[in-house]
Order: sequence, then structure tokens, then C-alpha cells
Amino acid sequence: MLLGTNMPAALPGCAGLDARRAPQLMTSPRRCPCRAQPRRPQCAVTQEVAGTTQVRRNENIGKLQAGYLFPEIAKRRRLHQEQNPDAKIISLGIGDTTQPIPPSITRAMRDAAEGMGTIEGYSGYGAEQGRPELRESICSRYYAMHGLQAEEVFVSDGSKCDIGRLQVLFGQQMSVAVQDPSYPVYVDSSVIMGMTDGFNGSGYDNIQYMVCRPETDFFPDLSKVKRTDIIFFCSPNNPTGAAATREQLTELVQFARKNGSIIVYDAAYSAYISDERPRTIFEIPGAQECAIETGSFSKYAGFTGVRLGWTVVPKALKYADGATVHADFNRISTTIFNGASVIAQAGGLACLQPEGYREMGQLVDYYKENATILRQTFKEMGFTVHGGENAPYVWVGFPGRESWDVFSEILTQCNIVTTPGSGFGPAGEGFVRASAFGQRDDVLEAVERLKAKYGK
Amino acid sequence: MLLGTNMPAALPGCAGLDARRAPQLMTSPRRCPCRAQPRRPQCAVTQEVAGTTQVRRNENIGKLQAGYLFPEIAKRRRLHQEQNPDAKIISLGIGDTTQPIPPSITRAMRDAAEGMGTIEGYSGYGAEQGRPELRESICSRYYAMHGLQAEEVFVSDGSKCDIGRLQVLFGQQMSVAVQDPSYPVYVDSSVIMGMTDGFNGSGYDNIQYMVCRPETDFFPDLSKVKRTDIIFFCSPNNPTGAAATREQLTELVQFARKNGSIIVYDAAYSAYISDERPRTIFEIPGAQECAIETGSFSKYAGFTGVRLGWTVVPKALKYADGATVHADFNRISTTIFNGASVIAQAGGLACLQPEGYREMGQLVDYYKENATILRQTFKEMGFTVHGGENAPYVWVGFPGRESWDVFSEILTQCNIVTTPGSGFGPAGEGFVRASAFGQRDDVLEAVERLKAKYGK
Repeated sequence: MLLGTNMPAALPGCAGLDARRAPQLMTSPRRCPCRAQPRRPQCAVTQEVAGTTQVRRNENIGKLQAGYLFPEIAKRRRLHQEQNPDAKIISLGIGDTTQPIPPSITRAMRDAAEGMGTIEGYSGYGAEQGRPELRESICSRYYAMHGLQAEEVFVSDGSKCDIGRLQVLFGQQMSVAVQDPSYPVYVDSSVIMGMTDGFNGSGYDNIQYMVCRPETDFFPDLSKVKRTDIIFFCSPNNPTGAAATREQLTELVQFARKNGSIIVYDAAYSAYISDERPRTIFEIPGAQECAIETGSFSKYAGFTGVRLGWTVVPKALKYADGATVHADFNRISTTIFNGASVIAQAGGLACLQPEGYREMGQLVDYYKENATILRQTFKEMGFTVHGGENAPYVWVGFPGRESWDVFSEILTQCNIVTTPGSGFGPAGEGFVRASAFGQRDDVLEAVERLKAKYGK
Repeated sequence: MLLGTNMPAALPGCAGLDARRAPQLMTSPRRCPCRAQPRRPQCAVTQEVAGTTQVRRNENIGKLQAGYLFPEIAKRRRLHQEQNPDAKIISLGIGDTTQPIPPSITRAMRDAAEGMGTIEGYSGYGAEQGRPELRESICSRYYAMHGLQAEEVFVSDGSKCDIGRLQVLFGQQMSVAVQDPSYPVYVDSSVIMGMTDGFNGSGYDNIQYMVCRPETDFFPDLSKVKRTDIIFFCSPNNPTGAAATREQLTELVQFARKNGSIIVYDAAYSAYISDERPRTIFEIPGAQECAIETGSFSKYAGFTGVRLGWTVVPKALKYADGATVHADFNRISTTIFNGASVIAQAGGLACLQPEGYREMGQLVDYYKENATILRQTFKEMGFTVHGGENAPYVWVGFPGRESWDVFSEILTQCNIVTTPGSGFGPAGEGFVRASAFGQRDDVLEAVERLKAKYGK
């Protein structure tokens, strides 16, 4: 309609592109030397569709396959529920907390909310980087002993959002490596930013998939990994539940330093570590010069709905030209972010007080016990089971089978939602992830259903 | 140190770049046909700095001038306070709400926070796009009468963050126009995404500054504006306080449709409109095919610290190839965002109930009265004053003077923080913005101080 009514009829499809774009049209039809440009011809009149704008779709988004994993699972779950209205579906799928937030933390948020109705308790915009006392508390609980300072901690509305902001920080020019399997957001956000090429059937071209399978203790064989600018690394790992050892993380840090790479270390599940493995990448000497770390209250205090996390960007971390990454991340944080909710921040502060910290530990223990139950169950049924000891995820092998088939089987026959391993990357094929986030009764019932189907 | 200890001494500076980047190095030193590539030589060994990674800084961020405006103002204010510890500084600077959140809204957030401590009231991850009932409420209050539906409304943690996500949606290839002066985030985020070239002394190259000055009633002369993919347009405007008329918005929509452009319409101050001017771009016929709108509870209900806003992406809005923008924005929202805090969302729901809506109106009236006081004061002192009638901002002309000088004068001599007009773009030079967000007593005292300095 737009073109029909407002545009001169003879206008060619690309007339709206301004002059400085013109040279693109004369470059190779396959691609321009940088990865910014779409492959498809841009001026074909046939591309015009009535009633559209003349704005070209961001082709990077077009490269993405299907939906983001979890909405896709939610869709399949809904469908199953619609077809089976009486089914009592239990979710061991998305890692979503289910237990109430402990009292001292809830109280702090309630008081903060109530205070917003008073002159004394009211708070408008805070610093985009977070309340100074919260940055201080996070730092002194988790990072000060490793030489970091409060102003290297940026409070945020959660790790997923921080990954997005980090990608904006890095920009399109970066090359990226991810663990395979891994949390889909690293890959998907890299695709969106244009750091990768298209989908090749199992993964995206121009992204390094660092295979993490049982054979190598879920740590990549770094001798086979090409240098990239950015290395996303999650430990304890989502989805495999593997927590890297000190030796492994030392190897990773040395690899990054040797290559001059930046590690983005996702430590969202650190509190689930039971033994002496490092809780933060900054336990490893030299990490401050090569790593950023994201952390979150989501899985510690049940804050998935409250939205509160943080990112640590050491001032010692520098780009090749000597500029600090910290200064640029600060600029990103102040420009396209406006701080986490002050009510959530009040909750975060309470989490780190002695009482809240104790309560948070109990909450983590609850989910860890769920993980133990799931782990034991699958083991007893004869499956090869990984994770679940230092992480809230249990990674179950179904060798020779496709993950989505197993997912469907468990959904339709047990009314249990899991997550198909292949949704986390090609090397996740043949596995299914069971999440320990759930109410105990549900976990126990799920276990019974699983035993009925898969038990010997 | 990295290079000194871990890298072979003779390694050239670009050895870390992987092979697929190599062709770039052979292209013109000025720029590759697309705007993705940096201008400076990439392999100069002299660029290496000891103790750095080998990751090249995102050059787009390097193009940004100084800090984001408001942190810069905060810095100058701090400095003045340090030098004058006894000064009682009043802020008419950043548009930050000061008045308590009304009771029914505070109560809803308090109850939601408290509920998070119970099994029944607990809520984990919600839909990234927001609670369905909140999307429904926003839609029925503001958009349903213009033919929009709840699922075209995406709830968020605020407009600033939504602008960031919209920029990620658009990607680097887009060309951009902004009102001049305008809210700095449109320009800065465009620079960060690589949509512009470098700073040229007053603005950035390859961005259309649509001059909005008193001579044209603060509406751009569109006959002088080149076609761009994206047009950021804020009305009521921050900083000029001008609210576009129906005729002006009709002209804007026709301009966008003729060019096949997408308008990003920032309606964060809509509730401040006193007369019959449109509250939303979707009052204009045809806007659904060419516009996105952002909205916010920040200035309606004092939610600057709570963090809650929304973005409307009509399903009728399409890229040149016919793909809907809605689907892609949905993908962005689910991939790099995780929903607004459920506590904030409970507050937003309360805002749209009859009681909360009435209370919100009273709050807006309070700030509007501040605006009237400021407007009258400057007028009485003989200044040319704009805005303040349909917006919480008063735009005061100081012809022939530099904005930052006036800012400094008012800060040092009246202990009042304003915002220098030039911080909003080249056409803001010679103006200062006074914000009506403040407590009445402070506004009245500010007025006295201003009269003492500038009164006749």
C-alpha cells in the first residue's frame, strides 16, 4: 500500500537507499569484504512487497534458526497441554526457580516498595551501574579477596541482558568461541550482532564451537580451538552441569592470554559448587587481564522474576590499543541501560547481609538436593549421567537418539518437560537436560514417572 | 605484560586476527564500501601496548564524544559541591522524578514483593514480553482505540533500554535521522551501533540532524531532510518541550511512508499534553505501517527508579521484503532481555486501574504546575521561553551565548543545575533546559534565586 499510494510507480526497489550505500551494490554478489553486508541482491524489484517500508531487514536476525530455545519449548508444552487438558505437566525444563524468596530478602524489597511512597524512601534514577553499597557488597562477598574493587562491578537486571550489552560493547567485528553445548544466548546474540555467518545445518559458520563432551571431562581440547577475540565460557556449565577445575580454568586463562583473547565467564551457578573448584574466574592468576565475569541473583535467591545480576569488568582488562574495556562498558551501561530496579537492588543488598546470605545458602541447598535426587534416579535406571553435583542441571545421555525425540517422548509419555541437548549446540545431540529447579514434590513425582517409563 | 611474557617477541600486531579477516587489510585505508570497518590501520605494530589483549576496541564506541550527557553534568555538579560544601544545590537538570509514588501503586508493589516470599505469590521468569494482563492494560488504556492489540505491546524496563534493543534490532546497516536537539540516547546508541561516521565538531557524519528551532515551531523542515531508514522522533519533545500538532505528525507520517522509513516515536511525556494534540503516533492514519512507539511509566508514576516502560511494534509494520518487524523485535526481546521485574510490573498494572490512573494524573499535574511556575518566571524575567505547556521541560533561550557557559553560570551563581542545550545536539546551542521534576519548595526557591540573578 505504501508503495502503491505514495511512491512514484516507476521507482526502483533501491531508490530509497541513500547515496553512500551505492558502492555496496557494485561489490561481489556474494559478500563485501567485511561481514556487514547481506548476501542477497539488494535492488531486485521483485523483493518489494506492497504495504511495506523500504527498510531492509537486519539480515543477521534472518540468520537465526527457529525461535529462541525456551520459547520454543514453551510452545510445545502448551500444545501438549491443549491436546491433553488433564495432564499434570511437570517442568524440569527451563531453569526457572520455584521456591519463595527467603524472608529477610522479601522484607527488604517490601520495605523498599513501601518506601517509594514516602519522601524519605523515594528514589528516582540511581546510578546506571548500581547503588554504590550494592556494588561494594557484591565485591566484598565475591571479588575483593581476588584484588577487585567495587567500581569494577556493574549491577544489572540480569546476566542474559548483560550478555546483550557485552555484545553491543564488542560490536560486529569480533570473532567468537563458545562451549558446545552452551547457553543459547551466547550464540544467538553473536548471530544478531553479525559476528557470525549463516547457519550450516548444525551450527553457524565463523563461530568456534569448542566441543565439550564426556570424553574430555566437558572441557574443550584447546589445542584444536582457533584464536578468537571473545571466548564465552560458562562454569558451572549450563547445560552439562560440569564445573571446571582449577587446572582447567588455569589452562583456559593461559590460552586466552597467549592469544590475547577476552573470556566472558558466566558464573551464574557458582553458588552450586560443592567442592574446591573456583567460584570465580578471578581466582585464577592473570584472569583480570583477560576476563569479564557475569553473575546473578536469579539462581541464588530465586530472583528470576525480580531481575538482578552483575558484570565484573576489571580495569586491568585492555584492548590492543591500551584502552580499558571498563571505560567502554561503563559508556554502554550509561547509554543503553538505566540501572536495575531500586526495589530489586534493595533485595540484592539483603541477600548479601549475614541473614540473607544464610537464607540464600539454604535455598541453593534445596535445589542441590533436587539435583541429587534426579542424578541418582537416572543413574539407578542405568543412564550415563553428568552434572548435578556442582550445578543445578543433570545431563543425561541417550546415545544414538535425537534429543528432540527424547524430549517429545518424555513430554508425551511422562508429562515432563526437559530440555533437548541439541538445543544447546551440535555437541548436545543425544543428551537431555533435567533442571533441578522445582518443588520437591514435583521432582519426586517426576522421578516416579520416569522410573515407570525408563526403570528396569 | 601479556605480549611480553606469553607471545613470541616477533609476532606482528595483527597475527591474532584470523584468516577470514585478512581481506579487509587490503581494502582502501579509508574505508570499506560498507561502514563496518575502522579507518585506522589495523596492523601497525606501534598500536600494541604491553599488558593488553589483542582484541581491537569497537571503534564505534571510540567515535563517541566525552561522556553521556547526564553523567557529565553529575560530575560537574559534584565538583561544584566539593568546592562549595555549604551550597544547597537545587536540580532542574536531569529529568528525574522526586515525588513519592502514589499509594495504590506503591501498595501493589509492596504486596507483590511480599508475595514473592510465599508459594502462591512467587513468580519466576515471566514472559520476556511482559505479563499478558499488563500488555492488555497498556493496550486498552492507550492503543486499542487506534486499532492495536495487546500482543503488539512489549513491556520493558524502560524506554532508554528499549532504544538500545531497537538499535540492536535495526543493526549497523541502517541510516538514521534525529531531531536536533534531541535526547542524546538516539544519537549515542546510533554511534555505538556503527550507523554513523565520526564526530565532525558539532555532530556525527552520516546522521541526519533535523533542525528543530523556534522559527519552525520546533518541527523539522522535512523538505530539507534526506531519506533515512529510521527517524527518531520524540513528542512532547525532550528537551524543547514542544509537542507536535496533529498536522505536524500527519506530515511526519506521510514523509515516512513516502520514503518507506520507520519512525521510532518516543512518547514518554505524552501524559503531559494539555490540549488536543495527539497522545500517540497511532492517532495518525497510516502510522501502523511506518511507526514504532516507546512509552514509559517513569514520568507518569515516578517509576524512574522502579524501571518500567513499553514498546509498541505494530504487526502491520514491515521490512522491504515483507517480513514483520514485530517478529524480529520479539526475537530480540526474548534473546537479550528477560522481562521487567515482576514487582515493577505489579506496579504498572496498578497504574492502569481506575484508582492508580487517577493518582498518576495528579502526579503529572504536580509536575506540570512546576513547569508553569518555571515558564512564568523565565518569561517575567524577559527570556524567550518555549515548552512547559505540554511537557515537563522548559526551554530557555540565551541568544548569542554558549549553553555550557550559561549552565556553569547558573550552577556557580545560583547553585542550580540545569542542562545545557548543546548537550542535546548542535541546534540546542544557546538554550538551557529547565526540568520541572522537583519538589515544589525547591522549584520555588530556584525561582527566587533565578530572579535574584536574572530578574530586572
